[in-house]
Amino acid sequence: MRKYVLMVLTGVGLISGGLAFPAFAGEATSQSNQVAIDTIWTLLAAFLVFFMQPGFALVETGFTRAKNAANICMKNLMDFSVGSIAFFLVGFGIMFGADRLGLFGSSGFFLSTGDPGTGDGLWQIAFWLFQAVFCATAATIVSGAMAERTKFVGYLVYSFVLSALIYPVVGHWIWGGGWLAGRGMVDFAGSTVVHSVGGWAALAGAIMLGPRLGKYTNGNSNAIPGHNIPLAALGVFILWFGWFGFNAGSTTSGTNLSIATIAVTTNLAAAAASISAMLTVWFQFGKPDTSMTLNGALAGLVAITAPCAVVSPSSAIIIGLLAGILVVLAVEFIDKVLHVDDPVGAISVHGVCGIFGTLSVGLFAQASYGESSGVGAINGLFFGGGLSLFWTQLVGVLAVAAWTFGLAMGLFYLIKKTVGLRVSPEQELKGLDIEEHGMESYAGFQIFVTE
Amino acid sequence: MRKYVLMVLTGVGLISGGLAFPAFAGEATSQSNQVAIDTIWTLLAAFLVFFMQPGFALVETGFTRAKNAANICMKNLMDFSVGSIAFFLVGFGIMFGADRLGLFGSSGFFLSTGDPGTGDGLWQIAFWLFQAVFCATAATIVSGAMAERTKFVGYLVYSFVLSALIYPVVGHWIWGGGWLAGRGMVDFAGSTVVHSVGGWAALAGAIMLGPRLGKYTNGNSNAIPGHNIPLAALGVFILWFGWFGFNAGSTTSGTNLSIATIAVTTNLAAAAASISAMLTVWFQFGKPDTSMTLNGALAGLVAITAPCAVVSPSSAIIIGLLAGILVVLAVEFIDKVLHVDDPVGAISVHGVCGIFGTLSVGLFAQASYGESSGVGAINGLFFGGGLSLFWTQLVGVLAVAAWTFGLAMGLFYLIKKTVGLRVSPEQELKGLDIEEHGMESYAGFQIFVTE
Amino acid sequence: MRKYVLMVLTGVGLISGGLAFPAFAGEATSQSNQVAIDTIWTLLAAFLVFFMQPGFALVETGFTRAKNAANICMKNLMDFSVGSIAFFLVGFGIMFGADRLGLFGSSGFFLSTGDPGTGDGLWQIAFWLFQAVFCATAATIVSGAMAERTKFVGYLVYSFVLSALIYPVVGHWIWGGGWLAGRGMVDFAGSTVVHSVGGWAALAGAIMLGPRLGKYTNGNSNAIPGHNIPLAALGVFILWFGWFGFNAGSTTSGTNLSIATIAVTTNLAAAAASISAMLTVWFQFGKPDTSMTLNGALAGLVAITAPCAVVSPSSAIIIGLLAGILVVLAVEFIDKVLHVDDPVGAISVHGVCGIFGTLSVGLFAQASYGESSGVGAINGLFFGGGLSLFWTQLVGVLAVAAWTFGLAMGLFYLIKKTVGLRVSPEQELKGLDIEEHGMESYAGFQIFVTE
Repeated sequence: MRKYVLMVLTGVGLISGGLAFPAFAGEATSQSNQVAIDTIWTLLAAFLVFFMQPGFALVETGFTRAKNAANICMKNLMDFSVGSIAFFLVGFGIMFGADRLGLFGSSGFFLSTGDPGTGDGLWQIAFWLFQAVFCATAATIVSGAMAERTKFVGYLVYSFVLSALIYPVVGHWIWGGGWLAGRGMVDFAGSTVVHSVGGWAALAGAIMLGPRLGKYTNGNSNAIPGHNIPLAALGVFILWFGWFGFNAGSTTSGTNLSIATIAVTTNLAAAAASISAMLTVWFQFGKPDTSMTLNGALAGLVAITAPCAVVSPSSAIIIGLLAGILVVLAVEFIDKVLHVDDPVGAISVHGVCGIFGTLSVGLFAQASYGESSGVGAINGLFFGGGLSLFWTQLVGVLAVAAWTFGLAMGLFYLIKKTVGLRVSPEQELKGLDIEEHGMESYAGFQIFVTE
Repeated sequence: MRKYVLMVLTGVGLISGGLAFPAFAGEATSQSNQVAIDTIWTLLAAFLVFFMQPGFALVETGFTRAKNAANICMKNLMDFSVGSIAFFLVGFGIMFGADRLGLFGSSGFFLSTGDPGTGDGLWQIAFWLFQAVFCATAATIVSGAMAERTKFVGYLVYSFVLSALIYPVVGHWIWGGGWLAGRGMVDFAGSTVVHSVGGWAALAGAIMLGPRLGKYTNGNSNAIPGHNIPLAALGVFILWFGWFGFNAGSTTSGTNLSIATIAVTTNLAAAAASISAMLTVWFQFGKPDTSMTLNGALAGLVAITAPCAVVSPSSAIIIGLLAGILVVLAVEFIDKVLHVDDPVGAISVHGVCGIFGTLSVGLFAQASYGESSGVGAINGLFFGGGLSLFWTQLVGVLAVAAWTFGLAMGLFYLIKKTVGLRVSPEQELKGLDIEEHGMESYAGFQIFVTE
Repeated sequence: MRKYVLMVLTGVGLISGGLAFPAFAGEATSQSNQVAIDTIWTLLAAFLVFFMQPGFALVETGFTRAKNAANICMKNLMDFSVGSIAFFLVGFGIMFGADRLGLFGSSGFFLSTGDPGTGDGLWQIAFWLFQAVFCATAATIVSGAMAERTKFVGYLVYSFVLSALIYPVVGHWIWGGGWLAGRGMVDFAGSTVVHSVGGWAALAGAIMLGPRLGKYTNGNSNAIPGHNIPLAALGVFILWFGWFGFNAGSTTSGTNLSIATIAVTTNLAAAAASISAMLTVWFQFGKPDTSMTLNGALAGLVAITAPCAVVSPSSAIIIGLLAGILVVLAVEFIDKVLHVDDPVGAISVHGVCGIFGTLSVGLFAQASYGESSGVGAINGLFFGGGLSLFWTQLVGVLAVAAWTFGLAMGLFYLIKKTVGLRVSPEQELKGLDIEEHGMESYAGFQIFVTE
């Protein structure tokens, strides 16, 4: 605390000397204040996005079985830890470094451009943190789809490669000055960059792993209920809370007052989606299922992530309503038709709704909102802009799908052939907590171990 | 992220091109910076108040039985989701629209005044979010008093009506330029507007529902212990955390430096109340009960909500000490004497202490604090202001009680006669999770289902 | 909400009247905006540090047995409540009051200098909150080492004395203009002031209490597994989140842009430490233990707390890697060699890594970072600064150790001889929840009560 050090030099007690505010001020200007406002906004938003990490951990833990809870917490902690280091060493440079052919960046590794002695350098350091927590979010999405059967060491390898390479390349294309940015694709806070990347990698992982033991028998899908719904609900609330930082923080500027609109569209889409998901599942199965409703809230948040800064609050409600219906149908389809075992619905929430959200920009964008947020005066199909923006968005969706799904399949294949991707059936039955980590999550509690 | 789009246009990689800060700045002024500071303060406070929602969910979940945990999470999620939409469609306009006879507002529905192209429009959008999260808080208080026996569909109806009508009218009276504001009533952050409204509706709900099965037998009150004290404790800590946004955010201005005082009075009142509640219950029953102490902290927070900006830190401690004692006595009285079954003590915490806090303004207000926060140079009875402020506060308390309790009784009666208010005894015994939502909260755990 | 009051006076509805922003603005200047930015940064950071309280509660609860969970929550709540009041009455004045001989402060009790009518007064009020939440953090560290066997009333006495006296004196020495500050000791955010004070008091408490029943038999240490790993993991994530406020908030200025660097060094150290702790325990015992990895993250956070503002991101990674290894070795040593029973590893995490972090300043400090943050252009051994800074740090570490450990031993001895420090063996076997607080934490769940 610099203040104290200064005070000591002058030899007076702090209160007796006035504890004058502020000890290192002097020459504040409107410009320097603006930089400070933008920096603290970006940092606080980064803290909120960091806090999404336990949100993901709790949703995944709550929706799966007690015997794998510690393993799930461990994977989430490592997604963030390994991801932070990987993004520091490699990822940030690939994402935001000097552009090569519109495909990847090639400078700024090791935060080498973050000189603490200059304003620009300090800004890059703040910006790095905001981007690093985004990167870790993409990585952790996959964890849910691969829950309850993945070998821990194989998961670590995946986590490093996604953070160091797969995610940063997509980020460069859309946010780092790459070819999709050049075509005018709009993905304000990452329905595609973060969520559909996570969703495609999750699909690849779930396919390569195969379903959990006992999940599909005689062509039927058996429900494997989660062990702690209150923790899952807390996780969803934490994610919603953190998403305010995720979306509104993506201005990376607190003096850009469209942060207000973004926070509101984010909130309304999530609210609408949880209602429509509840009603959809209620209509389908006769009861308003809590798990599906929780996923509905997340679906709305994922969908509004791309368009949050270019659509009106009313459009946000419509996008949310559609996302809430879509996620219920997608979960059913992936489970009952495709027989891909995704224990928490990550593919539907992040993949399907990430794609939907990205495309919704091409439908609902309204110039007045895009101008206000600085994205530009773009209009989607429903507001007189024609279909060109929609096609641009679709190209982006398809390109990211091809890159991410392709690389992730290759990566998981390599992991399978080397360190191993899946635990043995015996380990799976006993649970990953005891087998992979040598511990129990709920010592003392009587728990039926299923399947 | 606008910055990236701009960068693309200029054709340079972000780091190589300097990642200059900030890409869309230019002409910051002291005025524009002040607007930004006030906006981000209001938004961040709104995020914190949003986060109170899982706080309420966890307190209620923890203090009730395992068989109803998912239902409680669902009610809290829906309070916020339904409340957000209702407040968007109707509530905000009633609360802050053009005044009619001092009774209600009549414009600004659908956020129609929130033009994203103007500073005032963006401010209204930010202000809407702050008010929407307050509205949802009032709704969710009631959930606790009605826990473990309310029919889900009936609860949804209640939640919509409270958010769309009952709460906004009170809000208009006191915060929206209505008749109580005109009389000079002071309720800085909502001991009355939010908490006693919640408390009165909770009382109406608990009366109309009747007690849980087995709660009162032969004239005795039987304790029905909660199933997860650590979650309840986490909920209280989350609420305390969010309350900093609730109270200090109610300046809706970060350049109003009284936010410092407000945060400190809030904190000291909560600390004092948890100590005095603990000592009271310890004295009464011989042991320092954890549940009651947790409710003590909430009691202090509720009580300081009205006076937080007009009293000194020392007065805040006294208010907290009294609230902590009061809540213990009120819980006893409502349970043992009135035989009204309030599973989490919501009526005592939010109703009784909300009233007490509102009245305490008339006793402890000190001109120097009110001037600093902009409320005005008012003094309460103990600081030379006489009784007039106290009477004003009392009028407000009584008027809000009549309106809220009256309407809530009518509403719950209508719900009872139409969609139904209470589940069947069989459903109550089996638990609302399985009966209303078709699921268990703790699959795999061995749990005794009581009663 | 002042705005509403003003509006009433003018007799117009808020929206119809424009809801003009902001109602009490007027003459903002660059200076006044700077004060506002610094104030909201400090307050928001204080809120984040407050939120570390449930983080500590959950880590401690999760790592111990179900029969003591409510007691642990209660101790954490009381640490904060009693600490807030004690710091208000006494602690702040001792820490930051007019200096006496470099040893303690002697003015500013009861927040008497926090005049709400002046800018300096309001700043002192904000500053008080930031310091109060730090004080409570130091107190709560000790709780973990004394878990599952401490008499509640004895714990309350300890908590008051630490907050009122032991911690503030150390704080005065290093942050309040005392003798260690005069020698140039650097402890930016409190590896020593907060964490090693907590660690030394924890060691004293664990020694004076003796081990839990059944912990050591025939010279062997028996593992007593924790009962809820997901809650412990949530606690660690909450602490990490709060730590951004703890470290970056310690500038007590948002216009000091080194907050960006501090947030990044904090994050990288934690990430590196959780990886190195995982690898260390994996190498030692063949499996990556989740509990130890979680402690690794905390070890990194504790270690980087002193140097966060004076070292580079790369150095932060090295400090984190070392801390992660160190904490695993320290836990083993204290348990298996010293036979001191510390149920959650608090002595290792906060004491050992707090000391290591403080000393690491003398090794890794780099002038460019210290200049940027305002600490000063200091260099550690590895950056050409020689050993003098290291010796200064070491003197500080030893002085704080002597003061804290000495006083804490005396305090616990007095408690033992008066109100009592440890519960009876019967109470310990049945659990503190039922014996000390008359309740269960998990009513309805089937739980084996061990030992």
